[in-house]
Amino acid sequence: MSQFTATDHLLMARALRLAERAAWTTRPNPMVGCVIAQGDEVVGEGWHQRAGGPHAEVFALRQAGERARGATAYVTLEPCAHYGRTPPCALALIDAGVGRVVAAMADPFPDVDGGGFALLRQAGISVEVGLMAAQARELNHGFLSRIERGRPFVRVKLAGSLDGRTAMANGESKWITGEAARADVQQWRARAGAILTGAATVLADDPLLTARPEAGEFLPPLRVVLDARLRTLDCKRVREGDAGTLYLHGPAVPVPALEGAEFAGVGVQGDGRFDLAEVMAMLAARGINEVHVEAGPTLCGALLKAGLVDELLLYMAPLLMGDSARPLLAGLGIEHMAQALPLEVHDARMLDKDLRLQLRPPAKTN
Amino acid sequence: MSQFTATDHLLMARALRLAERAAWTTRPNPMVGCVIAQGDEVVGEGWHQRAGGPHAEVFALRQAGERARGATAYVTLEPCAHYGRTPPCALALIDAGVGRVVAAMADPFPDVDGGGFALLRQAGISVEVGLMAAQARELNHGFLSRIERGRPFVRVKLAGSLDGRTAMANGESKWITGEAARADVQQWRARAGAILTGAATVLADDPLLTARPEAGEFLPPLRVVLDARLRTLDCKRVREGDAGTLYLHGPAVPVPALEGAEFAGVGVQGDGRFDLAEVMAMLAARGINEVHVEAGPTLCGALLKAGLVDELLLYMAPLLMGDSARPLLAGLGIEHMAQALPLEVHDARMLDKDLRLQLRPPAKTN
Repeated sequence: MSQFTATDHLLMARALRLAERAAWTTRPNPMVGCVIAQGDEVVGEGWHQRAGGPHAEVFALRQAGERARGATAYVTLEPCAHYGRTPPCALALIDAGVGRVVAAMADPFPDVDGGGFALLRQAGISVEVGLMAAQARELNHGFLSRIERGRPFVRVKLAGSLDGRTAMANGESKWITGEAARADVQQWRARAGAILTGAATVLADDPLLTARPEAGEFLPPLRVVLDARLRTLDCKRVREGDAGTLYLHGPAVPVPALEGAEFAGVGVQGDGRFDLAEVMAMLAARGINEVHVEAGPTLCGALLKAGLVDELLLYMAPLLMGDSARPLLAGLGIEHMAQALPLEVHDARMLDKDLRLQLRPPAKTN
Repeated sequence: MSQFTATDHLLMARALRLAERAAWTTRPNPMVGCVIAQGDEVVGEGWHQRAGGPHAEVFALRQAGERARGATAYVTLEPCAHYGRTPPCALALIDAGVGRVVAAMADPFPDVDGGGFALLRQAGISVEVGLMAAQARELNHGFLSRIERGRPFVRVKLAGSLDGRTAMANGESKWITGEAARADVQQWRARAGAILTGAATVLADDPLLTARPEAGEFLPPLRVVLDARLRTLDCKRVREGDAGTLYLHGPAVPVPALEGAEFAGVGVQGDGRFDLAEVMAMLAARGINEVHVEAGPTLCGALLKAGLVDELLLYMAPLLMGDSARPLLAGLGIEHMAQALPLEVHDARMLDKDLRLQLRPPAKTN
């Protein structure tokens, strides 16, 4: 039986929902929510809105005031123990006289990593960890991937027909999916630290690649173009707007000076293709938690083949396009059923007339 | 505002559910349910279980006995007015003294077609038609298609990967979908009047093509093999078991005598392919309400191209098989987006780890 009560669950769920409000604004920091309660009465709540701004606990403690004394603080992530851009939240909780802290999970960030819990316990506060841990990990899968694996959580967006096609043989493809699906894509873009594409897509579509959600504040995601020989520089739209643009190129490619653009060299493999693991490590080193990929079948296929895709976001239009149309993915090199790439349906829903599937590699069972 | 009360809706919904119990046994007759109620108290109910057996109204009236007097009878289809294998139900309702009849829809069958309602009204019974008509039409889409369009409702079952592939380039394909999906297919087979396939599938898989639902009585569906030159006769499994087998062949093909098999010639078109509309008309003439198609990409593609598919039943395994694998459909001849075949998602659900989509051509808006 769980050590946690129904009230504990309810208040942690509330803290998780609060945390998620900052999905578009808090990066590269994790999303964190905090609820302070006397029994089942909420006396303060808050969430971490922006890196550099106050943490979730600070907002919640301010609201609770004197009523924090003896209260329980529900936090979706371990309170910080280090002096960063703000003083440690663990000390703030101690100072406020909180009696009990329930945390969904520890913070693997090296400067915290158990230190917050240790401070609280030294002060005689009861600390319980692990309530709704799976949900808390899911909330911050990008941040956790960066800290724990040294690479971002990689989401590949694809849009196609029921029979797995993205465009006619002649390239015609506009508006396969409907408005609701296209608006949905903008929300995923808005929460990503980077939107990644390949040279083929830039040359074919001259895309803007900015996030344009219908409403809400967001940090403009970095646009990243994989362009081994910098063939796409004449396509200017990808450098327009507020967002920065990073071109990743191969070794020994001359780099021009272009306003709004950064350049970085990445290693290529024997076949002349980018070392995609190195690309992702580089993006993680820049503080990118989630990478949103919108690219052609070759780059998407290469990411899948390299085992670098954490989620496939597949929009299916209710259409049949036929077997001469272009495939969703290329270059997977699958010849036998045993080589087929297994996925799991994480979520399936309708967006107006289109179907949206969130697909993930099966959890590893050791 | 609707003329029908919430109680009317509730009791008609009950009648519809009763009707559906005979989905596997009542063909070629329509499924019909009947609920007899005094106010909101059900006093009798029944459904038409088998062609030649008593109709739904008879079961319900038997159960209601004297309490049918002054009651309301909810019927999912117009009561019959003709002496068929049983006496007319309209007369039985009149004899029992029913006060009001609520029908979901008229019966387009030529021997009824308004005659049942006319008899009831002549006897002074209040008759109201149209409650939950859409649901009643959906229930009997096979029967209605046969009577109104002269062809069965055609359901094409396909199973493939997320990227629209059914088999490896070398033909390897077994067990793409899981057990739950395969068990589900058996239920669809059980409700079909015929299971149709092509010569290519018989030669490749030597299938049994019987319905094998986990539980429940059913009439064995007729197996229909489209085999222009009767090349598949050595594949004997399709003639094993209780179900009959009908081979459809082209003109001037010599027909052998084979136990358990029937043969019929069908016209072919200029390109040597079967006239699929003629095939469907022939099956309708034999009393087939629903045809369940399990065939290869060419025959399925030809049916779609001919506009003869009323529902695509698409099982998607959570797998990527790559662009060298075999396509779901062939021969659609689509070169431009404007030629893509539009469908609508009628139902989407998970069957264990697989996704099942019921797709239908969009309703025609005139």
